[in-house]
Amino acid sequence: MKVDGTHYRSLWWNAEVAVLEIIDQRALPYQFVTQPVETMADFAAAIAEMRVRGAPLIGATAAYGMARAMADDPSNANVQAAYDHLYATRPTAVNLRWALDRCRAVLLPMGPSDRARAALELAHAIADEDVEINRQIGLHGLDLIREIAATKAPGEPVRLLTHCNAGWLATVDWGTATSPIYHAHDAGIPLHVWVDETRPRNQGALTAWELGSHGVPHSYVTDNAGGHLMQHGLVDMVITGTDRTTRTGDVCNKIGTYLKALAAWDNGVPFYVALPSPTIDWTVSDGVASIPIEERDPREVSHIQGTTEDGTIGLVQVTPQGTGTGNPAFDVTPSRLVTGLITERGVCAASAEGLATLFPDQAGGAHADAG
Amino acid sequence: MKVDGTHYRSLWWNAEVAVLEIIDQRALPYQFVTQPVETMADFAAAIAEMRVRGAPLIGATAAYGMARAMADDPSNANVQAAYDHLYATRPTAVNLRWALDRCRAVLLPMGPSDRARAALELAHAIADEDVEINRQIGLHGLDLIREIAATKAPGEPVRLLTHCNAGWLATVDWGTATSPIYHAHDAGIPLHVWVDETRPRNQGALTAWELGSHGVPHSYVTDNAGGHLMQHGLVDMVITGTDRTTRTGDVCNKIGTYLKALAAWDNGVPFYVALPSPTIDWTVSDGVASIPIEERDPREVSHIQGTTEDGTIGLVQVTPQGTGTGNPAFDVTPSRLVTGLITERGVCAASAEGLATLFPDQAGGAHADAG
Repeated sequence: MKVDGTHYRSLWWNAEVAVLEIIDQRALPYQFVTQPVETMADFAAAIAEMRVRGAPLIGATAAYGMARAMADDPSNANVQAAYDHLYATRPTAVNLRWALDRCRAVLLPMGPSDRARAALELAHAIADEDVEINRQIGLHGLDLIREIAATKAPGEPVRLLTHCNAGWLATVDWGTATSPIYHAHDAGIPLHVWVDETRPRNQGALTAWELGSHGVPHSYVTDNAGGHLMQHGLVDMVITGTDRTTRTGDVCNKIGTYLKALAAWDNGVPFYVALPSPTIDWTVSDGVASIPIEERDPREVSHIQGTTEDGTIGLVQVTPQGTGTGNPAFDVTPSRLVTGLITERGVCAASAEGLATLFPDQAGGAHADAG
Repeated sequence: MKVDGTHYRSLWWNAEVAVLEIIDQRALPYQFVTQPVETMADFAAAIAEMRVRGAPLIGATAAYGMARAMADDPSNANVQAAYDHLYATRPTAVNLRWALDRCRAVLLPMGPSDRARAALELAHAIADEDVEINRQIGLHGLDLIREIAATKAPGEPVRLLTHCNAGWLATVDWGTATSPIYHAHDAGIPLHVWVDETRPRNQGALTAWELGSHGVPHSYVTDNAGGHLMQHGLVDMVITGTDRTTRTGDVCNKIGTYLKALAAWDNGVPFYVALPSPTIDWTVSDGVASIPIEERDPREVSHIQGTTEDGTIGLVQVTPQGTGTGNPAFDVTPSRLVTGLITERGVCAASAEGLATLFPDQAGGAHADAG
């Protein structure tokens, strides 16, 4: 999306010098820093140090890493060495493994002399596929926003609320939850977006940076505010992303999503979840019972990062010395609270039946926890 | 309550030197600083600078300020001068006015020579009355916690969740929402308290400091976490305070309270609100429609205070430069989500009928917005 009028993806190939460029996301939302990724050591560091973040972006970066490796040395031994090197950077990232597996499966059967070109083409394809999925999500979500806009007086904005950063920074472009928002803004529909802070890691600041950079009107609010806003008719629609969606439409997303879904339900506000279909887990039926929730570093809760008065990035501890914290990273929103799922194939009910309508090719699979 | 084994109130009379002492709450939760309040200028500054905070504590401090003034000069003119001086410190604080009105009404009819002693006795009485109201709230709430404890295996803690700081620091002692907690802990009932951070002002850090200082086991969690904790059976009861309660049992409390009430309702967790009866507004029936919600300084949302690595108190900005914020300070929890109200006269249903049972002397009054 745009940063001060210029269109960016979260990574892009600089064909003139044959180098990948990325945004160093560690500096956001305070500074916008782009940088080349030139050597295999650079690629590994970019992923391991979380200069790039978000499943689709990590996968695409790894694919460009394989292309870099094949340009250096297209031997069979180096296909595996590059795979291992990149995989070790964040071994729990499912998308990283998926992208590397896909690259290896394409490269090994072909002659070494074809590999450099093929690997680069595959990396481009992986990046473009992500953009296209998110674009389709955005077009389907745009229809929903258009319907709300049609009920408004001329110039009156559609008020949306989002939680966390399911934005273009976490994908290659458009984002998931933000894609309908960008599509609606670009289509000239007046919007106002309430951006949940999303403690403990304040990903709302990234969303606010994205929206501000692209020119979408918005306000940053604490995670506590959404219920009040909905009680007073100030939210027309909630859109969030999801890390994992069950075959029955339960949504595992950033901690706090469930509270917003409850408030939406209590106030008759539509609550939509945007998702690329690969995040559907066809093996799980009961999200609350079956999805283990990661308990993360207590320092994420006790300490907060921001800019200090002299403009540098600083950290303050908000808890008294010695106070213990709890830090569950995700929660599960039961499908009964979800108005609909926005996927690349269209919008469906958050239910096994709804998902089966859009994904008949996948919905028939086994489900481990029955249901 | 206790601070490292020593019992404190949030203010106390040092009879040896005839001086009021307070805790400078601006330094909390980072440092525990007590200080004398000696001159009228000291009293005015202590209230205006929010060294003391919370309605009951402000009222009691002002009463001691009147006692200080009468010891200096018990003339009629000085009764009014001291009233005006103290009232100007925080003119929107209802309890401040209430305490000053009460002092003036007692002092003016008596001879000047009796005023110094009478004013001091009245200040003691106002402070003691607050302690007694909160003690009664605690005893009634203790009964509720005992009932839950009776269902637990030996040693298994009762898990409570609270939002904001309705603690002893905001009153003279015990607090409101915390009073049942302190009573249960002191009675030997094993507890674990989930303390909501309560962005934007992080009053949860004060609650965590209180509980830690008194020795009550607890964890500090983000405001997003409570729904997940309740879904997984990790909360037995929610207790919050309230700034204003309607005659029908709607509760206006710190922003975010409503979201926790929704989660409690969705998971069958009892949701109680502790309140001294003076916070009941007998003129209002529909809290969501009738109670105006204060929109506070946007910097409370964009900036967060804490301790820096070198131990000093610092401020960081968590939003991108130029990002606008919304900062509604309170929300209204409809009575249908409230299991019961814990008052100094007992526990009642959150309804007009419930409140009328406990307060027949007050519930008959006119109600401005009908219902």
